[in-house]
Amino acid sequence: MSLHGAYDPDNIFAKILRGDIPAVKVWEDEHVLAFMDVFPQSEGHVLVISKTSTARNVLEIEPDVLARITEAVRRLSKAVDKALKPDGITISQFNGEAGGQTIFHLHVHIVPRWADRALKGHGHAPMAEADALRGLADRIAAELD
Amino acid sequence: MSLHGAYDPDNIFAKILRGDIPAVKVWEDEHVLAFMDVFPQSEGHVLVISKTSTARNVLEIEPDVLARITEAVRRLSKAVDKALKPDGITISQFNGEAGGQTIFHLHVHIVPRWADRALKGHGHAPMAEADALRGLADRIAAELD
Repeated sequence: MSLHGAYDPDNIFAKILRGDIPAVKVWEDEHVLAFMDVFPQSEGHVLVISKTSTARNVLEIEPDVLARITEAVRRLSKAVDKALKPDGITISQFNGEAGGQTIFHLHVHIVPRWADRALKGHGHAPMAEADALRGLADRIAAELD
Repeated sequence: MSLHGAYDPDNIFAKILRGDIPAVKVWEDEHVLAFMDVFPQSEGHVLVISKTSTARNVLEIEPDVLARITEAVRRLSKAVDKALKPDGITISQFNGEAGGQTIFHLHVHIVPRWADRALKGHGHAPMAEADALRGLADRIAAELD
């Protein structure tokens, strides 16, 4: 998928937003949803998406939507830090297949990092157990301001 | 450097903001500066920083400052797309040494990607020629809305 094209209403995140497939939610309001990546690159890998926009990427995203996503990313990063005490946090947002994107509904990755743990490859990590993700989500949610 | 600690006023970006060392600027206003990474991971690698905040990372950044940085990243990404026509764009923001951060003044990377070109390692890319960076900066700036 290039940077330019049409939104696919059957992408995985659209299905999550419609409730067609489940997600382990960390936080949401009427605009934004934060949930656990089921193929986590590290423990506590959170994704943040818009619930209202059909922007595929940063070229299409509405400024007010991006602002709401970004503020959620900031708050969730602080909660991840408090809950999991990682050594670092990598925040990334991929655009286009060549840019690392695999699901074409704009999303931001919050990936906790530990100095002594290798990162699992994006799109190559094993699927996590739902119970383990629920436990992490609850710990992170408990630290949200 | 961990996620928690003091701001070093002699970090490279602080020196750029003071005018102590040069930078190839793409765009700036009174709040935000966008300039070319001198160790580009790919052609057209742009960095966006706050001119006013001494936040080291996402845990410390003021919400209004982050909002201004993010809006600049959005506009610059669109300009990078128009000017250089990459296949993808990777946006990243590293926090803490374990999170990939090497300069401890919050910054966002805009890295154009091409399907047939490998990415140079962060912190391991060769230094770019100032003239080549100036040419890229001018092409990107010309496409800013």
